Amino acid sequence: MLPDQHILRIPGPSPIPPSVERAMAQPMIGHRGQETKDLLATIRPRLKPVFGTEQEVMIVTGSGTSGLETAVVNTVEPGDEVLVVVTGAFGDRFAKICEAYQIRTHRMEVEWGSAATPEDVKQFLETHSGIKAVFATYCETSTGILNPIRDIAKVVQDTSDALVIVDGVSCVGGVQTRMDDWGIDVLVTGSQKALMLPAGLTFISVSDRAWQVIDSNKQPRFYLDLRKYRDSLEKNATPFTPGLSLLFGLDQVLNLFEEEGLENVYNRHGLMMKMTRQAFRALDIPLLTSDDAASPTVTAVKPEDFAAEDLRKAVKQSFNLSIAGGQQHLQGKIFRIGHMGYCSPADVLQIIGSIEIGLQQIGKNVDLGAGTRAAQQVYLEESR
Amino acid sequence: MLPDQHILRIPGPSPIPPSVERAMAQPMIGHRGQETKDLLATIRPRLKPVFGTEQEVMIVTGSGTSGLETAVVNTVEPGDEVLVVVTGAFGDRFAKICEAYQIRTHRMEVEWGSAATPEDVKQFLETHSGIKAVFATYCETSTGILNPIRDIAKVVQDTSDALVIVDGVSCVGGVQTRMDDWGIDVLVTGSQKALMLPAGLTFISVSDRAWQVIDSNKQPRFYLDLRKYRDSLEKNATPFTPGLSLLFGLDQVLNLFEEEGLENVYNRHGLMMKMTRQAFRALDIPLLTSDDAASPTVTAVKPEDFAAEDLRKAVKQSFNLSIAGGQQHLQGKIFRIGHMGYCSPADVLQIIGSIEIGLQQIGKNVDLGAGTRAAQQVYLEESR
Repeated sequence: MLPDQHILRIPGPSPIPPSVERAMAQPMIGHRGQETKDLLATIRPRLKPVFGTEQEVMIVTGSGTSGLETAVVNTVEPGDEVLVVVTGAFGDRFAKICEAYQIRTHRMEVEWGSAATPEDVKQFLETHSGIKAVFATYCETSTGILNPIRDIAKVVQDTSDALVIVDGVSCVGGVQTRMDDWGIDVLVTGSQKALMLPAGLTFISVSDRAWQVIDSNKQPRFYLDLRKYRDSLEKNATPFTPGLSLLFGLDQVLNLFEEEGLENVYNRHGLMMKMTRQAFRALDIPLLTSDDAASPTVTAVKPEDFAAEDLRKAVKQSFNLSIAGGQQHLQGKIFRIGHMGYCSPADVLQIIGSIEIGLQQIGKNVDLGAGTRAAQQVYLEESR
Repeated sequence: MLPDQHILRIPGPSPIPPSVERAMAQPMIGHRGQETKDLLATIRPRLKPVFGTEQEVMIVTGSGTSGLETAVVNTVEPGDEVLVVVTGAFGDRFAKICEAYQIRTHRMEVEWGSAATPEDVKQFLETHSGIKAVFATYCETSTGILNPIRDIAKVVQDTSDALVIVDGVSCVGGVQTRMDDWGIDVLVTGSQKALMLPAGLTFISVSDRAWQVIDSNKQPRFYLDLRKYRDSLEKNATPFTPGLSLLFGLDQVLNLFEEEGLENVYNRHGLMMKMTRQAFRALDIPLLTSDDAASPTVTAVKPEDFAAEDLRKAVKQSFNLSIAGGQQHLQGKIFRIGHMGYCSPADVLQIIGSIEIGLQQIGKNVDLGAGTRAAQQVYLEESR
């Protein structure tokens, strides 16, 4: 194995582009100096298209979970009744955070590997009045599904006064996201997935409607108090010391987005998803999710006649290729490939080609090259 | 296309491993300070196995051609008669350097794409007495052949008193090299090929026999005077300011070689060569060189029914994959793939998979995935 080569294809953290690495290596600056104000002034307007919003996108130094907790503690109070749509481990986490704060939490449990349906959400809200917020996951990292957030947001608004609060951690920046148009009230994402940065920043944007709730919310909060971030951001500042090297990197990530064009970024992710899915179809290895529910950022595969963990070990040992296993009750039953952020169709060919070898190594007799060929055909058709 | 991704697969410069990039980014030091002495003391003994020698390996700051010129100006004088084995553009360069110094230069022209034969060298030396040196190229970058240096060195020694002077620029560090055992008198390489560094350093080692010639050689020389480098190196120094960041990187390159083990490094290069060659065989696209003459570091392909330049443009445009074209009279007639240094079998799968798409894009109808499959089969057979 080639020392120093790590082919990182888990669904986040994702690889860092070289120019972002270089940007992050800039000398440190003071977080109250003019340099930081200038940096934030540059970043602020350019984050908005990534969220599809005219609102400010606030930046909290913390991992994705701190962003989810920020969404909870700013919008609901003990005793409030909420619905959490649980389609996997990260929907479960949203619910656990609500429960930790004594929120009256209804879980809508959806079978892992399937997406939630707007109809079920509608039906729930029609039979439960007084729901203050509906929490949902956009891309469920643990299963590779993409929930129909646009349609869910619509039924919530049509049926109730509940806020629509969305975890977009593992897809925002990789898939089309129109927070304002779709009626999302709070949208959260993290730095280490489609945003191509190390973990350490979480991004949150809030609708006018949600700000009214936040401003009157009595839930004790300090570091995660969004009002502080809003007031600071107006002055191109953060309330607490920000992860400055990640902000250096973010500035360059936004350059890369602008160079490629966001539509092209989304198309690339869709293409990589299709290449990956067609490859496993050609190899006759079942996918966990349906085409309709599949996320452009992560693909989960559910083998029937070999152990997912054996394959993960084989490609790790032969190529230092890291793919992810399953979480919670899917542990050992699936493997997951991250194709997000700094990942190209040529990288997908490398992943598939290496996995075909890994399959052969663990005794799963596959038609070598058949998955690669299927992925190549998708590339040629889509780029025609 | 993914901005920031450049899949660099020309036969040098080759990609820099991340840990080497980081090592080169160390703060600058003074070239006459203790830090530089310590650095050179660390490097000196560890370069020797790469050359397969007990001699010191001298480090000159300059590109590969300065290394070739160093070999010439230190060993021969105007009026001396030499043989240069020319198997391609870099054999030609060795001859041109000799000619520039008014050396009486006999060129043994070998058809580009073929290796030189020891028999021809023997026959030449038997009919030309007084040859002072035989210059030969180990790997001819322009055609991807590996000359049988061991056997050439043997016939030179058996038939004459000529020095054996070898250009190992595009293979030393990637293929087995036993300077002492094989009777090489002067061996040169560069930093930017199998040594995984940027261009800027050239490495030269000299046999006891060659030192006698060098010490009495009257050819005027200053910067390239090997006696200065030898005398300085004894004190862990260089006669002139060295490219220090490249030395930082070299220290880490040697760490990587030691981590992988040189035998494994050579086996990996052999494996990548076989994977690449079998892929093109499976695609029914002719290779320029025979198996016997092929270099483990670079593969030249000579298409018959499509334009090499079209393919190069297609993969550049679709994947930012850089492969090289032909040089001199082979321009437009071949393309060359570098698989040396920081390159793994998984990278070869990426190269082949991308090229298969490129072929289809330029209208060359190939059996998609067939080249990949052939490469995968080689991997599985060789790693069994």
